[in-house]
Amino acid sequence: MTKSELFENIKRKKSFLCVGLDTDIKKIPPHLLCDEDPVFAFNRAIIDETSAYCIAYKPNLAFYENGGINGWSSLEKTIEYIKKSYPNQFIIADAKRGDIGNTSLMYAHTFFNSMDVHAITIAPYMGEDSVTPFLTYEGKWVILLALTSNRGSSDFQLTDDRQGEYLYEKVLRISKTWGSDENMMYVVGATQAKMIESIRRIVPNHYLLVPGIGAQGGSLEEVCRYGMNDSCGLIVNSSRAIIYNDATAQFAAKAGEAAACIQNEMAFFLSKKGII
Amino acid sequence: MTKSELFENIKRKKSFLCVGLDTDIKKIPPHLLCDEDPVFAFNRAIIDETSAYCIAYKPNLAFYENGGINGWSSLEKTIEYIKKSYPNQFIIADAKRGDIGNTSLMYAHTFFNSMDVHAITIAPYMGEDSVTPFLTYEGKWVILLALTSNRGSSDFQLTDDRQGEYLYEKVLRISKTWGSDENMMYVVGATQAKMIESIRRIVPNHYLLVPGIGAQGGSLEEVCRYGMNDSCGLIVNSSRAIIYNDATAQFAAKAGEAAACIQNEMAFFLSKKGII
Repeated sequence: MTKSELFENIKRKKSFLCVGLDTDIKKIPPHLLCDEDPVFAFNRAIIDETSAYCIAYKPNLAFYENGGINGWSSLEKTIEYIKKSYPNQFIIADAKRGDIGNTSLMYAHTFFNSMDVHAITIAPYMGEDSVTPFLTYEGKWVILLALTSNRGSSDFQLTDDRQGEYLYEKVLRISKTWGSDENMMYVVGATQAKMIESIRRIVPNHYLLVPGIGAQGGSLEEVCRYGMNDSCGLIVNSSRAIIYNDATAQFAAKAGEAAACIQNEMAFFLSKKGII
Repeated sequence: MTKSELFENIKRKKSFLCVGLDTDIKKIPPHLLCDEDPVFAFNRAIIDETSAYCIAYKPNLAFYENGGINGWSSLEKTIEYIKKSYPNQFIIADAKRGDIGNTSLMYAHTFFNSMDVHAITIAPYMGEDSVTPFLTYEGKWVILLALTSNRGSSDFQLTDDRQGEYLYEKVLRISKTWGSDENMMYVVGATQAKMIESIRRIVPNHYLLVPGIGAQGGSLEEVCRYGMNDSCGLIVNSSRAIIYNDATAQFAAKAGEAAACIQNEMAFFLSKKGII
């Protein structure tokens, strides 16, 4: 998917919401456990009820690997289902991979050829040759960790060097030369909203994938104030607050309501910015 | 496996070799392709021929994920085979994971409970709460990336802060307080052998997992000179130079010869240090 196609989807749906599919078999409603593939059954229902309100889905690989072969199968089915039923959805494999060149090549092949998702999250620690193998695929995206939403983000990402540049700023400055705003995005936690101002000075045009609203406590209003640009420039993720909004047989409808509520707020900010 | 058990294995086998199972279906001898599970057949043969000369195996997750469900199955079979046939082998999942707390908990459960490997490689970028969920398992190890063997390692790992401390040194200094030398090790590339001297000042007692000899050009002699401590303190990995030493029906025997050759050199350095 190109950047302009993504932006068209955002305008059309008045939403820049990504629904995080952190599907934990221990948390899904009990009536699904009799299904042949409970994780896929849960995801399919969530997707059907939320797709009208979001422009992206982000399966978190940890939750599928945890199921071993069955988990991997649920993941493949989920991705196939989204692609077939909702082909305009942007699919992000939240995998946080990154390794030496020949290994990153393997990961890129897995996610972009075999699984055929649009984007993968990557950790920057190993530098350029761990990232560039992912940048050779047409219409595919690297979403590089810059400033994450968790407490531990301050341990290393906020290290400042001799020039007073934080590590996450250096990651942005250096890595943006490896690709462009047509094939790279950055992960910036919503819990760090004020820092998005300085991030926008370094990467004014790149899309930012913003986790951390909802369960992690970030504010959508602040993210939009500091992060939205003329092409929206934001994909805001919510996982637990949507998919575990309700644990009864109504879980999917309730997830849809939670997504609709966020979409409604997003439409307000898109309108305020003059995008829609 | 405890640190002292690992050290006993090293002394008994006169080896601190880890064989990297970066098994690429495109590179395995053609006669195996008729097997029901060619990747597992290849691994089993490699393991049978090399186990006498090594103390650890390190499957690289990228190569198994690339096969989808089949790949995951090959990985599970490989791990089960090692555990059953060679229970003293230390098994490292080379996965380079690391995510926010609840996601790292999932990864920890996958690798330490379900898959039951001894260790997993972790990327440090997201800080403490992305690592500590892995440190609560008895007899299990985090192997944290410190200074990697690839060219891109200089992009961020060699950033020096206001105090002149490199990022990889800060990673060592901060992270060693999260656990101990009984449940943490560090990845240090053999291509960075001279820097192991400064690393040993920060973590004198931790084991180091050292990739990069063989195909990547690092020197075992230099790694031992700068990195070996009284408990050996080194697990040196070789992948391609062993497992792809030969592409004929003799591949496994040739892999065994390559491993024996490295083991022989290792015995020399262990003896020189007075460990055996």
